Amino acid sequence: MSLPSIETIVIIGSGNVATHFSGAIKKAGKKIIQIYSKHPKSAKQLSKEYAAEFAGSVNDLRKDADLYLLAVTDNAIEEVALSLKLKNRLIVHTAGSVSADMLKRSSADYGVIYPLQTFSANIPVDWKKIPVFIEASSKENEKKLFRFASLFSHDVHLLSSEKRKKIHLAAVFVNNFVNYIYSVAENMMKENNLSFDFLKPLILETAERIMANSPADIQTGPAIRGDKKVIKEHIKFLSKHPDQAMLYKYLSEMILKQNQKKQKK
Amino acid sequence: MSLPSIETIVIIGSGNVATHFSGAIKKAGKKIIQIYSKHPKSAKQLSKEYAAEFAGSVNDLRKDADLYLLAVTDNAIEEVALSLKLKNRLIVHTAGSVSADMLKRSSADYGVIYPLQTFSANIPVDWKKIPVFIEASSKENEKKLFRFASLFSHDVHLLSSEKRKKIHLAAVFVNNFVNYIYSVAENMMKENNLSFDFLKPLILETAERIMANSPADIQTGPAIRGDKKVIKEHIKFLSKHPDQAMLYKYLSEMILKQNQKKQKK
Repeated sequence: MSLPSIETIVIIGSGNVATHFSGAIKKAGKKIIQIYSKHPKSAKQLSKEYAAEFAGSVNDLRKDADLYLLAVTDNAIEEVALSLKLKNRLIVHTAGSVSADMLKRSSADYGVIYPLQTFSANIPVDWKKIPVFIEASSKENEKKLFRFASLFSHDVHLLSSEKRKKIHLAAVFVNNFVNYIYSVAENMMKENNLSFDFLKPLILETAERIMANSPADIQTGPAIRGDKKVIKEHIKFLSKHPDQAMLYKYLSEMILKQNQKKQKK
Repeated sequence: MSLPSIETIVIIGSGNVATHFSGAIKKAGKKIIQIYSKHPKSAKQLSKEYAAEFAGSVNDLRKDADLYLLAVTDNAIEEVALSLKLKNRLIVHTAGSVSADMLKRSSADYGVIYPLQTFSANIPVDWKKIPVFIEASSKENEKKLFRFASLFSHDVHLLSSEKRKKIHLAAVFVNNFVNYIYSVAENMMKENNLSFDFLKPLILETAERIMANSPADIQTGPAIRGDKKVIKEHIKFLSKHPDQAMLYKYLSEMILKQNQKKQKK
């Protein structure tokens, strides 16, 4: 018996995740039949772009789509899913830190399609290279979602909610925290009338060099050298920003500790 | 009166910085006449690669080169420079956090060529795009060094020691600290039997998206959303690593504060 494939999709949400998924689905040759969002303006625009019907309210939603894809904020997932009143249509969310179970009161058939990437408006992504993690309420739904995701990503995996949450935590470090550190540096440059652009080749290289190296193996800088003179001067430079000085101290100590551990091995 | 250009160079050091500068100098069509380092093995190898003479001791160094380029560790700069006994040949160091003055006892003509990039063995760099900051003991030496650096970089600037140190501090954030955060994430993935490779597209995208955006404008994640539920769960996940849990809390608080400041504006 061959498994029916996912052909028609309803998208709930109209933000960056919904927008990028719409692109992926179109590329996969599947049909977005409706788009609904609590932000009608962006939902209307997205519907137009993908020749989908714009649904003005949950009551206007069709009940016969093969897949309902939720791309709403984490805290809204359960409530929005319940409001769709689907019973037994396949519904998925796309969040890293939310259990698949959050959808079990909404439908007998549910799951997760979690793309490990950050999506911004107007920044195109290469879906083929994005790792996509699948979880579902049954083996059949797992297979369906796996096949579906494989149409746009070349890196699809089955993964439990528990493990997905750990990946999401690691993603918070390498995306949210790293971006915040970029913004601290941007501020520092501004305060000294220096262009943030000067740092951009270094930022790119720092990311690119770990594509083929373990970051622990290529750590450099005053902290790992134990260069107390430079560290002291840097902390002095940061005296107007006690928060940043504290962060500097804290990270330097952690780097030094990591190095001591490594040398003991 | 036309300024004599830098044609012959002696390199002191044989590590990653010395190696990458050798490549830059060769590309610029200038001649490395000698290489000296306290690590004779790597100095010999580098000499061979660039058809330069290998100097076994400081006493073997020629006194007539147009430029002596020091690429040694920060703390060794002054001592090594003095040991060369140059008096009035142009000598430069290449460090971000060391004042140009550190060389004034070594020669009447001194300066700094600071490339804002991280250099690793076997990872080629695109010198044209690397910002290079120049400082020198006189207008004439400034001009000489500026012209010399412009042969390999398209982004050369005059900059004081004070400002260069601020750039170096920002570089510690976007390179050393970011790399450390990558290593924390790598560890996290390992502990959960997940491949670090999964994070690589996200790491690259996080760097690439700030090429055209201010990082402060595109901050995402649980901290900026004030998503206490997810933050609490993440801190629980990190309970085996109190250091990492603390770092998570600290960065999340800083992101939240930054956001509050921004909204007040």
